[in-house]
Amino acid sequence: MLKEALYHRPKNNYAYAYDKETIHIRLRTKKNDVESVDLIHGDPYQFKDGSWVTERTAMTVTGSDELFDYWFASVKPSYRRLRYGFEMKDGHETFVYAEKGFFEEAPLDDTAYYFCFPFINPIDVFTPPAWVKETVWYQIFPERFANGNRKLDPPGTLPWGSAEPEVDNFFGGDFQGVINHISHLVELGITGIYFTPIFKAHSNHKYDTIDYMEIDPQFGDKELFKKLVETCHQNGIKVMLDAVFNHSGYYFPQFQDVLENGEKSKYKDWYHLDGFPLETTPIPNYDTFGFVHTMPKLNTEHPEVKNYLLEVGRYWVREFNIDGWRLDVANEVDHQFWKEFRKAVKEIKPDAYILGEIWHDSMPWLQGDQFDAVMNYPFTTAVVDYLAKDKIKVSEFTNVISTVQHSYPNSVNEVSFNLLGSHDTPRILTVCGDNKGKVILLHVFQMSYTGTPCIYYGDEVGLTGGQDPGCRKCMVWEEEKQDRDLFKEIQKLIQLRKQHPAFRSNEISFIEANDETNHLVYTKTDENSKYIFVLNNSNKDLNIKLPVNSDTVLDLWSNEKVQPDQSLIKATLPPYGFKIYSFKSK
Amino acid sequence: MLKEALYHRPKNNYAYAYDKETIHIRLRTKKNDVESVDLIHGDPYQFKDGSWVTERTAMTVTGSDELFDYWFASVKPSYRRLRYGFEMKDGHETFVYAEKGFFEEAPLDDTAYYFCFPFINPIDVFTPPAWVKETVWYQIFPERFANGNRKLDPPGTLPWGSAEPEVDNFFGGDFQGVINHISHLVELGITGIYFTPIFKAHSNHKYDTIDYMEIDPQFGDKELFKKLVETCHQNGIKVMLDAVFNHSGYYFPQFQDVLENGEKSKYKDWYHLDGFPLETTPIPNYDTFGFVHTMPKLNTEHPEVKNYLLEVGRYWVREFNIDGWRLDVANEVDHQFWKEFRKAVKEIKPDAYILGEIWHDSMPWLQGDQFDAVMNYPFTTAVVDYLAKDKIKVSEFTNVISTVQHSYPNSVNEVSFNLLGSHDTPRILTVCGDNKGKVILLHVFQMSYTGTPCIYYGDEVGLTGGQDPGCRKCMVWEEEKQDRDLFKEIQKLIQLRKQHPAFRSNEISFIEANDETNHLVYTKTDENSKYIFVLNNSNKDLNIKLPVNSDTVLDLWSNEKVQPDQSLIKATLPPYGFKIYSFKSK
Repeated sequence: MLKEALYHRPKNNYAYAYDKETIHIRLRTKKNDVESVDLIHGDPYQFKDGSWVTERTAMTVTGSDELFDYWFASVKPSYRRLRYGFEMKDGHETFVYAEKGFFEEAPLDDTAYYFCFPFINPIDVFTPPAWVKETVWYQIFPERFANGNRKLDPPGTLPWGSAEPEVDNFFGGDFQGVINHISHLVELGITGIYFTPIFKAHSNHKYDTIDYMEIDPQFGDKELFKKLVETCHQNGIKVMLDAVFNHSGYYFPQFQDVLENGEKSKYKDWYHLDGFPLETTPIPNYDTFGFVHTMPKLNTEHPEVKNYLLEVGRYWVREFNIDGWRLDVANEVDHQFWKEFRKAVKEIKPDAYILGEIWHDSMPWLQGDQFDAVMNYPFTTAVVDYLAKDKIKVSEFTNVISTVQHSYPNSVNEVSFNLLGSHDTPRILTVCGDNKGKVILLHVFQMSYTGTPCIYYGDEVGLTGGQDPGCRKCMVWEEEKQDRDLFKEIQKLIQLRKQHPAFRSNEISFIEANDETNHLVYTKTDENSKYIFVLNNSNKDLNIKLPVNSDTVLDLWSNEKVQPDQSLIKATLPPYGFKIYSFKSK
Repeated sequence: MLKEALYHRPKNNYAYAYDKETIHIRLRTKKNDVESVDLIHGDPYQFKDGSWVTERTAMTVTGSDELFDYWFASVKPSYRRLRYGFEMKDGHETFVYAEKGFFEEAPLDDTAYYFCFPFINPIDVFTPPAWVKETVWYQIFPERFANGNRKLDPPGTLPWGSAEPEVDNFFGGDFQGVINHISHLVELGITGIYFTPIFKAHSNHKYDTIDYMEIDPQFGDKELFKKLVETCHQNGIKVMLDAVFNHSGYYFPQFQDVLENGEKSKYKDWYHLDGFPLETTPIPNYDTFGFVHTMPKLNTEHPEVKNYLLEVGRYWVREFNIDGWRLDVANEVDHQFWKEFRKAVKEIKPDAYILGEIWHDSMPWLQGDQFDAVMNYPFTTAVVDYLAKDKIKVSEFTNVISTVQHSYPNSVNEVSFNLLGSHDTPRILTVCGDNKGKVILLHVFQMSYTGTPCIYYGDEVGLTGGQDPGCRKCMVWEEEKQDRDLFKEIQKLIQLRKQHPAFRSNEISFIEANDETNHLVYTKTDENSKYIFVLNNSNKDLNIKLPVNSDTVLDLWSNEKVQPDQSLIKATLPPYGFKIYSFKSK
C-alpha cells in the first residue's frame, strides 16, 4: 500500500462532528490500492487491565477521483470523545496508520499514538439551517425580472425587452414586478429567491452600493420590500439578499468624503489608503477590488466600519425578516469580521442562511463559525464542462465531482449552493449551443445532487445570452415566447427532488463513466430507496443494460413499471436522453 | 514524480501569513523524489495582453521526515493577494500542480486553476507576543518550591524535604518562598515562570479548583501574590498562571450545590448532567474529565459559566498584571469559548501569552484566534525517546522533529512551549538513568531549538524522581546538595541561547543522523551566523570530521578558536559529549 498517498487530519473534511453526537471520519488512500480499512476507535480514557478499550468499524469507499479513494465511517462515541486509527489491508500486508505514524498492529498501551477528536462540543458543530437543503432557489436580477411600476423607472428606461442588455441600460425591473409574478415561481416549485443587490446604487446591477440601509428607488421602497418578503413567505418562499462588504461603491458618501477632504476626512480610516491625494493611475494608491478604482476596499477591521456593516447585517433581518445573506467577494474580507457577522445575524434569526461568494477551495470559511455555505462554482464548472461544453469527458467529470464532494464535510455539501449559471456567466442554454437536451441533463444532475440548487431567472423558459451583459436580458413573460416544455420538465424535476429525499442525499455512487459513449450512470440512495440515473450525453442512441436485484422497478419520469429481463433493465436512450429508475425497498 | 504524495492546502501550516506582508508557502513531496520546485505566483487580478502576470520563486527543502520532503518559499505579494501553483521537476518530467490539478505547463488564461490566499487581513494574522520567543521558562509547582512562611502551612505539613512526595502530603511551599529565591532564577537566566495552579483548591497540586478568584491560603494572599508578580517583573521575569476551565474541582461550591440540591440547584446547567441524582458508579452520570467523578466537566457554552470563567481570565491579568495563561485540558473545551477567552484577555493585555495544554496535533487551535501556542509534547517525546531513553535512533528522531516542525507555521513554532518534563512526567535525570551527560545533551538541543524552552524546577540542580508524585520532590536549597556543575552548564546554555539569535531561529538542518554511531549533527542559522551542533549520544568516543568553508571557527563552549585542517574540523567527543561551533559571516 502506498503510504505516501494516505491523508488524514482531524477537524476539517477528514474528521468532523456531523451532528451533536456523530463524528464522520474519512481517509484518503491511493486509488485501487487498499482492500479494506477498519477504523479502530475508542474513548481516550477507557482502559481495561491496562489495555485501551477499542471498537472496530469497517470503512467504505464513498468515492474516487483521479488519484485517490476516499474511505468513510460514521461513529457515535458514547462520551463524545474519540481517539482512532486506521487498520489497513491489501492482499499482502496489514498495518495501522495513526497520528504518530505506522504500526504493525494497533498499540493499546497508550492512546497518544492515535488521531484525536477530543470532544463534540455542540456549539462548535457546523449547523446550517435545516430548511436550506430542502430549498430550490431562483436567482433574480431585479432590474430584469419584471417591471411592475413604470413610475419608478429611472430616466431613460427602455421599454421591456426592447433592446439587448448593455452595461448601462435600464428596463425598470422592480419589486412590484416580482410580486406580480410570484405565481410563476410557485408554479415552478421555487422555495427561495436569491436577489442580487437591491440597495441604493449607481449601476443597473447595484453591486456599487451607495447606501446599504436604503432600497434603490428604482425597485420601490421599504414598505414595498416588506410586502415583497411577506408575499414570498406566504407563498413558502425564503428571501436571500446580496451584500457587498468587501468594497463600497464609488458614490458611497463616506468614500466621496475621502475623495473630497483627503487626509482631513473622518472616513479616511474606512479604507486602506496609501497616501494623499487619492490617485487612480497607473493603479489606485488605495486598496480596491481587483484594480478597479471605483470599488474601494473597505477596512472591515475598523470599528466604525465593522459596526456599520454588522448593523446592515442585522437590520434587514430584524426589520424585514429576510432569511439569508449572500456575501460578495467574501474571501477577501477578514475572517474575524465574518465570525462577528455570523453571530450578529444568527442572534436575530438563528436559522438565517449565510452564503459566501468564494470560487476556490473554501474549508477555512466552513468550520461552523463563519458561513453556512459557499457558491459551489467547482460544481458549476464540472457540470458545465461535461454536459454543456463537452470540454471534459465523463470520467474526468466524476473525478472532479468526487474531489469536490470529499473536500468538505457532508453537512457542508448538503447546503452548498449549486448553480448552473448566474448573472456573471453566459446563459446555460447558450453555453449548451441551444441544445435543450443538454440543458435538461444539466438540470437532472443538479436536481439529483446533494446541496441546494439554484435556477437563474429565465433559464426555465429558455432565455439565451452570452457573457455579461448578454446574460441579463429581460425576463420573457409572454407565454408564447416562453419555452413551456422546458419549464414543465424543470418543474417536474423539482417535484421529483422534493418527493424523493434520496435526490438530496449525500450518497451518490458513480456506476459507469464510460469515455467512449460519454454517458453517465449513477445511483442516489437514502435509508429506504435507491435510484439509478442514466444520462446520455452524446448525439447517438445509447443502449443500456443495467443489472438490478429488484422486481419492482419504476421509470420515474414516465411513471411506468419496468419489468427487468433476467435481472437486467434494458433500454435505449435517444441522444441527450435520460432515465431515472427507482427501486422501492419493501 | 509521485503525484499521490503531494499535499498542499492553504490557510494552515502549508500556507499562512507569517506577518502582515509575508506569506509562507510549503509543499509536501515524496522524499528524494523531486529535483526542484518553483512557486509560480502573482496577483489574482493582474493580467497583461490577456495573460496572467506571474513571478517565479525557487523553493527550498527545509526538512524531510520518513516519507516526505517539505519545500518552502516566502513571498511578499505587492497587493497582499496571492494565487499560486508549483512547477515541479525531476530529471524526466515537468508539471505544474495547482488547486484544479496537474498541468503540463502553467495555464495563464485564468487564475481559477491556482491555489488562493485571497488577502492578508492583518487581524487574521497569527501574532503571538514578541517576548515569548526570547523567554526561558521555569515551571514551579508551588507546594514544592520553597517554604517561606511556616505560618501558612496546612495542618500536618511535613518538614521541608523530610519525606518522599505523596499524592496527599504537604511541605508548605508558598509565594514567599518564591520571592526569597528569585535570585536563583535570575542567576540561572530565567525570564518567565509558569506556575501550576495557585487558586484555592483541595489537593497539593491544586488542579481541583474550589475558587478561581481566590489564592489558595497555603500560598499566601492576593497582596502577597501582587508582590510576587512585581518582584518577578522587577527581575525581568514574566508570570504565567495555570487555569483549569475544562472541569471544576469536586469542592467547587457550584458543584456542591448541584450535589446537594439536584434538579433544584441553580447551577445544574453549569455541568453536563444525565439525570438525577448524580451517580458515580459504574461511571458518573455526568460528564467528567476522563471518568474521574471528582472532576466534573464544566458547561462552557452556558452563559453564566462562560461569563464567570472569562472574568477569571480577565481578573488576574487586570488586577495582578500576569503575563500569560496556561490552559489545562484545553482540547476538550469548545473552540468558541477559547475565541472569546482570547479576546477577553488580549483586550486587557494585548501581549499576554495564551498556552493550551494539548498533547496531539493542534493546528485547529493555532489559527490566530485561540491560542498562541500549545505545550509541545511531540517535541518532548521525541527528544526524550532519543536522548534520554534510547528508545529511538537518531534518524527516527530527526524524522519526528521534522514532522512536528512542518505541522505548524514557523510563527507557531517560534513560541511553542518546549519542555523536557513536568509535574506529570518522571524527572529528566531519572529518565536518563542518572546519566548527567544525557541531561546536558537534552538541554543543548532544547536551548538551540526554536520555540520557548521551559525548565522544570529543580532539574537544573539534579533533582530526581519517578512518575508523579515522585517527580514533585521538595526543591533542594542547600548548595552542597545541589549539582552546581549541572546548574552552571544549563546556565551557560541559556546564556548562549540569549546571545545568539540563531539558537532561537526556525532554520535547522539535520546534517548527520547516523544510526550506527547514533550521533547527531545539525546546523542552526540566521541571517548573519551559522552554528554546527554535534551531540554524541553514545557511550563511545566519537571522532568527527566536519567540512567547513570558513577560517574563523569558534568552539563556542570553550570559547577557543579552531583551525580547520584542509577545510575540515576534526575533534574527538567523549561519550555523551557535545560541540558547538560558530562561524561568523563577515
